[in-house]
Amino acid sequence: MEHQEMIYGCHAILEALQECKPIDQILIKKQSDNEQIREIIFRARKQNVTIKSVPIEKLNKLTRKAHQGIIAFMSPIEFQDIEQIVPSIFEKGGNPFFVILDQVCDVRNFGAITRTCECMGVDAIIVPQKGSAQIGADAIKTSAGALFKIPICKVRSLKGAVAFLQESGIQVVCVSEKFSENCYDADLTQPIALVFGAEENGIESSIIEMANSSIKIPMQGEISSLNVSAATAMCVYEVCRQRK
Amino acid sequence: MEHQEMIYGCHAILEALQECKPIDQILIKKQSDNEQIREIIFRARKQNVTIKSVPIEKLNKLTRKAHQGIIAFMSPIEFQDIEQIVPSIFEKGGNPFFVILDQVCDVRNFGAITRTCECMGVDAIIVPQKGSAQIGADAIKTSAGALFKIPICKVRSLKGAVAFLQESGIQVVCVSEKFSENCYDADLTQPIALVFGAEENGIESSIIEMANSSIKIPMQGEISSLNVSAATAMCVYEVCRQRK
Repeated sequence: MEHQEMIYGCHAILEALQECKPIDQILIKKQSDNEQIREIIFRARKQNVTIKSVPIEKLNKLTRKAHQGIIAFMSPIEFQDIEQIVPSIFEKGGNPFFVILDQVCDVRNFGAITRTCECMGVDAIIVPQKGSAQIGADAIKTSAGALFKIPICKVRSLKGAVAFLQESGIQVVCVSEKFSENCYDADLTQPIALVFGAEENGIESSIIEMANSSIKIPMQGEISSLNVSAATAMCVYEVCRQRK
Repeated sequence: MEHQEMIYGCHAILEALQECKPIDQILIKKQSDNEQIREIIFRARKQNVTIKSVPIEKLNKLTRKAHQGIIAFMSPIEFQDIEQIVPSIFEKGGNPFFVILDQVCDVRNFGAITRTCECMGVDAIIVPQKGSAQIGADAIKTSAGALFKIPICKVRSLKGAVAFLQESGIQVVCVSEKFSENCYDADLTQPIALVFGAEENGIESSIIEMANSSIKIPMQGEISSLNVSAATAMCVYEVCRQRK
């Protein structure tokens, strides 16, 4: 795990949560349960902070300090609220353009996608609380600093975020090689959120069902499976091309 | 340096060269000079094998065996000859599509570009003998095996390759943020070779002068510098879109 600021122990972590400091994730020893832990879990869920149950050995490897069975990784960036970003784009007369990453957990892919999105004028990247890439030194390095320039929205539920976007008049479009419509045949000029899935599992089926449409990038080779950061580059480019 | 088959000593390396076995690069101790070394350098140059002069400490770190001041890395792939590939595409009625990488030495970028190119039906990737990425385990892994499926042409001189492509009726088009024409305004439907430059230095000026045209990907962000593998994904996609 890359170098990232850590805090230890129930007291310090509860304090950070109470002060709404940006926490990337909290690791808790398996089967921990007491009043403070419950309070931490309650507050962390409310603030969309990722929580993981891990064996005590993992915590011991991370620090020699008295961690009391709980370690939090501070986030180098402040997460933004999608419910504030969407209206602010419309108010400025902008045409919203979001990228949703469904459990893209590879840190380098996440960093590369962030860089591409920043360069191409994407308004924000939306990731779920669970299963997303850790936002630490490696992600920042691969992003060439873009992580400090483009808003990242961490949401408790992707389904909830998709519903909110659709209510706000934004088309949610899933991208995968499984679909039949070619991306250049689809109209991508409207307010849009493109959804890309994890390297192994693709996009969750409930999100595909909710989406307004589904597109693919036509391929010709034998491998027929683009890396998610290459697929994102192509589709983000296509949206920009159509909107030019 | 990643794991890759190595051979040591003048005799073994000379034999490999005489049998035209695929060698990725040869490391020679600085200021080495004798009859056999001269013969190796002569044959390696002829076969487009990269040669590097390195301090003896570097060789000692690579192996404890008696290397006699010279180590060769075998290539896991066989390089192809651009002068054979071009006519064979025309004979099959194909519309040639090449990607030229001018000193893209980052192994992961090279692997990622190879994967994208294979998926999108690029005919071959052309790289110069000097300053290209080492083709070993890391490049193969990042390419998801695409390195075994798409021809890689290693050429002694990029200028020579560009001249050959142009004589064969192939448009050579440089891509960089420095140029003014937008990629979607250019006609990319003709036989084409897209040129991408190294992360730091860009494309060599003599290649830009020789090229038939130069294009850019329009950007909107603050960073305004795409990673070379994202830029390649977008332009390769654009060629495929125009040719659909």
